[in-house]
Amino acid sequence: MRARCRVGLRLHVVLAESALELVPRKVATSPDVVSDSRRRGLPAAEILLDRSFHHRALEKLEDNFKRGRPDLVHEALLAVTGSPLYMEGKADVWVHTCVDRVLEFKPGTRVPKNYLRFRGLAEKALRGETKGELVSVMNATVKELLKRVIRPDWVLALTTLGKWSSFAGAAETLVTKNEPCVMIGGFPHGHFSPGAMKLADSALKADAIPLEAHVVAARLVYEVEKHLGR
Amino acid sequence: MRARCRVGLRLHVVLAESALELVPRKVATSPDVVSDSRRRGLPAAEILLDRSFHHRALEKLEDNFKRGRPDLVHEALLAVTGSPLYMEGKADVWVHTCVDRVLEFKPGTRVPKNYLRFRGLAEKALRGETKGELVSVMNATVKELLKRVIRPDWVLALTTLGKWSSFAGAAETLVTKNEPCVMIGGFPHGHFSPGAMKLADSALKADAIPLEAHVVAARLVYEVEKHLGR
Repeated sequence: MRARCRVGLRLHVVLAESALELVPRKVATSPDVVSDSRRRGLPAAEILLDRSFHHRALEKLEDNFKRGRPDLVHEALLAVTGSPLYMEGKADVWVHTCVDRVLEFKPGTRVPKNYLRFRGLAEKALRGETKGELVSVMNATVKELLKRVIRPDWVLALTTLGKWSSFAGAAETLVTKNEPCVMIGGFPHGHFSPGAMKLADSALKADAIPLEAHVVAARLVYEVEKHLGR
Repeated sequence: MRARCRVGLRLHVVLAESALELVPRKVATSPDVVSDSRRRGLPAAEILLDRSFHHRALEKLEDNFKRGRPDLVHEALLAVTGSPLYMEGKADVWVHTCVDRVLEFKPGTRVPKNYLRFRGLAEKALRGETKGELVSVMNATVKELLKRVIRPDWVLALTTLGKWSSFAGAAETLVTKNEPCVMIGGFPHGHFSPGAMKLADSALKADAIPLEAHVVAARLVYEVEKHLGR
């Protein structure tokens, strides 16, 4: 049984409150940041905060359990951009970060598969050096992104706080919309903030256990494809 | 409709002929390898061959279009190990490389999500320094791996040279076996070698376009889960 779908469906995937940011000024002098900054030959303020290298620095930051995981964001981006749905121009992807910056990818942009290249690109974008390129950055809360930029006709949040569904069930509803948006948490632990949750028309939990963002993204996009009759 | 499944199903995922290897001696003096080796402070023979850094070196190697992409192997590993099927002990994963070495992961091993940590682990394993740890290495062709080590009761190759199916169709057959093995190409371009193809009881193509290994792995494992009634 496939749900009715309209010709012009475009799925907006938003990785919300993602653990991707440059090292905040507050921890720029933390010893682990300083040594990483020296090793890379870049100022602390120009490198991505990364728990793999900046564990001590992260301990000094609020909500640190949700931050400093650019690797997870990269993997979730690849899960979306590697899909036929994205390659055929029926999906786009946005990275809203935990510090309210948004990475916008021009439709069809191939995200670097090599993590080191992705890191370089994200750092360049967050420094504001990619204007007019395939990736650009704006300052926006997730509410501003949804209400002013994407303007979806329906918002689904995938979260373990949601009502039980399956990915197939979620997709079945999504494909009845024209411009649906799915919010996936771009962070390793915890939940969407109450502000983000309020934006959702529906909040669903598609597995009994918490899944990583790339697994959630891959499954949701795949089910949307199936419901579109690929 | 779900196919009948037996209680003890264990899915063996083999990333075959994967683009993961240490820099071969033949190109150890290539200028791009030498400069990368200096930058990393490691002998050329101890670093992973990587097209992102060793493009010129790769041009000198045969079958180079299939080699030097450890990033793809990492992403495919994460697609498998991030799945509930793997976390529940119903799947395992093997990396057979293009130079006939095999990385074996003890059941339930969490592969490092950070690429730099994965690279370090893969290099250590391929240097033979992880004996008794969660990842170990043996020398084996894909035939030896299947016939002597895994001994599956059925082998499925997913390849664009196969007969048209869907991931759901492939999974429906897989779950009727006890110890099925699915071979996914761990390389960026090209096809399985004829030798690898001969090992397959069935060769299926699950999409009209070639998909990256992590997309194939994610979709197949997900469909197996669905057919197991998760």
